Amino acid sequence: MFELTYQDKQTQARLGKITTSHGVIHTPCFMPVGTQATVKALSPRELDECGAEIILANTYHLFLRPGMEVIKKAGGLHNFMSWKKPILTDSGGYQIFSLALLRKISDQGVEFQSHIDGFKHLLTPEDVIEIQGDLDSDILMPLDECVKYPCSKDTAEVAMRRTIDWAKRSKAVFKGNGKLLFGIVQGSTYEELRKACARELVDIGFDGYAIGGVSVGEPKNLSYNITKASASLLPQDKPRYLMGMGLPQDILEGVEAGVDMFDCIVPTRYGRTGAAFTSGGKIVIRNSPYIEDFSSLDAECSCYVCRNFSRAYIRHLFNTSEILGLMLVSFHNIYFYLELMRKVREAIAEGSFSQFKKDFLNNYKA
Amino acid sequence: MFELTYQDKQTQARLGKITTSHGVIHTPCFMPVGTQATVKALSPRELDECGAEIILANTYHLFLRPGMEVIKKAGGLHNFMSWKKPILTDSGGYQIFSLALLRKISDQGVEFQSHIDGFKHLLTPEDVIEIQGDLDSDILMPLDECVKYPCSKDTAEVAMRRTIDWAKRSKAVFKGNGKLLFGIVQGSTYEELRKACARELVDIGFDGYAIGGVSVGEPKNLSYNITKASASLLPQDKPRYLMGMGLPQDILEGVEAGVDMFDCIVPTRYGRTGAAFTSGGKIVIRNSPYIEDFSSLDAECSCYVCRNFSRAYIRHLFNTSEILGLMLVSFHNIYFYLELMRKVREAIAEGSFSQFKKDFLNNYKA
Repeated sequence: MFELTYQDKQTQARLGKITTSHGVIHTPCFMPVGTQATVKALSPRELDECGAEIILANTYHLFLRPGMEVIKKAGGLHNFMSWKKPILTDSGGYQIFSLALLRKISDQGVEFQSHIDGFKHLLTPEDVIEIQGDLDSDILMPLDECVKYPCSKDTAEVAMRRTIDWAKRSKAVFKGNGKLLFGIVQGSTYEELRKACARELVDIGFDGYAIGGVSVGEPKNLSYNITKASASLLPQDKPRYLMGMGLPQDILEGVEAGVDMFDCIVPTRYGRTGAAFTSGGKIVIRNSPYIEDFSSLDAECSCYVCRNFSRAYIRHLFNTSEILGLMLVSFHNIYFYLELMRKVREAIAEGSFSQFKKDFLNNYKA
Repeated sequence: MFELTYQDKQTQARLGKITTSHGVIHTPCFMPVGTQATVKALSPRELDECGAEIILANTYHLFLRPGMEVIKKAGGLHNFMSWKKPILTDSGGYQIFSLALLRKISDQGVEFQSHIDGFKHLLTPEDVIEIQGDLDSDILMPLDECVKYPCSKDTAEVAMRRTIDWAKRSKAVFKGNGKLLFGIVQGSTYEELRKACARELVDIGFDGYAIGGVSVGEPKNLSYNITKASASLLPQDKPRYLMGMGLPQDILEGVEAGVDMFDCIVPTRYGRTGAAFTSGGKIVIRNSPYIEDFSSLDAECSCYVCRNFSRAYIRHLFNTSEILGLMLVSFHNIYFYLELMRKVREAIAEGSFSQFKKDFLNNYKA
């Protein structure tokens, strides 16, 4: 289901293709985040237009609202939200640990209270696989325990061991049926733990491997080091997914380290506040320099927004609290990300990824 | 610039064509309201897709934000908002009387404080024409004085006289240049005043006539009576515009009375709260009956939203405060309105408007 089509000579960057029953994903790829069965402020056809080949949805949120009965009756998540291409669902573990109330974690699973209505739920690793099956997810993530930064080695090791145990149990109940199940490498900032985790997960055998527990509060350099170290431990012939970390500069570092898949909420979150990604860096459109700036958000971008609207107009929309403003900047940002990935893939194919990365970062004021 | 193409035999309903330098408008037409240079939550290409041939924008709001300097530098409102088709701008009179603070009205014009920043402005009828010229509006409305309901006859007469005087002054400074200037019939609920106003405006001579001062708090039957009486006073060979009144049932009454143009904020305002117009009447999508309703908003509608999304999904979006929810319902509502106008025109052309109106209202639970 994963085909490695090209390996860069100078870096770990690579090209690949993931085939699912809902379509093919060209890697390195960026997955727009559709937490609650919608990528915020974009319609599915707009995602298509931006060139999205896969989106991410969130098991925890969908389990709580609208709940599995509704999604099962709708015939799965693709039908429910009218997105025909692949969907990756996370396990909900991260959200249980960050959003849910009064959680109790044991080897059995996680007990928690919904952050919406306070109802108690118990989810085992087996439940989480079943839920993602009901969602009809194309790429499933097993329940894992993600620790914050900083974290003692002992705590990190307990969480890592539990993650491996849960991964094993997840695989045991995973039916396959053309779907992919990934393993998640944990181990906080401890190389020894990361190594052990990767080795044991590879021994169990998954369709792909995710690097979890990054972007949880640690300094950027450390994130990059963990990413590099973790990626190097993973088999060449399986896709690698760096979870939740994805500013443009992060993606380029990840690609260089051999990562194939990325997701991040920033393009839409920033979009809603009027922060636009451009080839020159991030611009905050509310700011006064844009009052009479009739150029497009990004002179190098050819998306619908950049072809039709000026910074002055978009600033006016934010200044008057008009919804179209956040719609346009969210759309542009997602397009910017997916265009970045197209350029990354092109550069890798031409053997010029290192140069591309250098040039991009030279222009881009982070 | 207006061509009456067909006159219904049984009713006052009629078909027509308004030609402007930005394109042709087929009447009877509905004009989506783009108060602040955006029809709320729809992009211009979505308006195109819905079949909008003209939109309305608001002089008062645009004068305050972004201000005329920005719009002039952008090359007019069409360029600024990327809407290539015709735009009608209202005079701002209604907003000055309903939103602005500390207004002082005199024969000279209106002095008021901005509801945004408290700055004082004085606008004369001549200013208002100049502003709409700078906006590059296709159809201009002169400054008028719109009274609330109920209103004494004396007060209504003073406002009506001033409206006529201002209309005269507006015409004197109006340059034409392929644009249309309408006169606005006022006179509150007094037939005698309406008659006098219409007669004097027609004597001055305008490119079209608007019926103002309806939907200002009076009972529905009275609105319909004023509409009918006012429309009957206006020349056959000029377009007639019923200002700001436009529930589906209102539009059908208006068409029957011989009105050609309508505008109303309800399709987008209702859309933002999750109230969808359907051939069976208005539905409130948050309500629990829709939790597992996998049918489209309106079985008879073939818009993008109805082809792709279920009531259950849209309810979920509102239930989780997702922006896509209000985007989808706003889109559907605008489509519903413009589709209604297409059907109305078709029915008139076939000589079956009365039957169409009867059938529509039979199905439609207001």
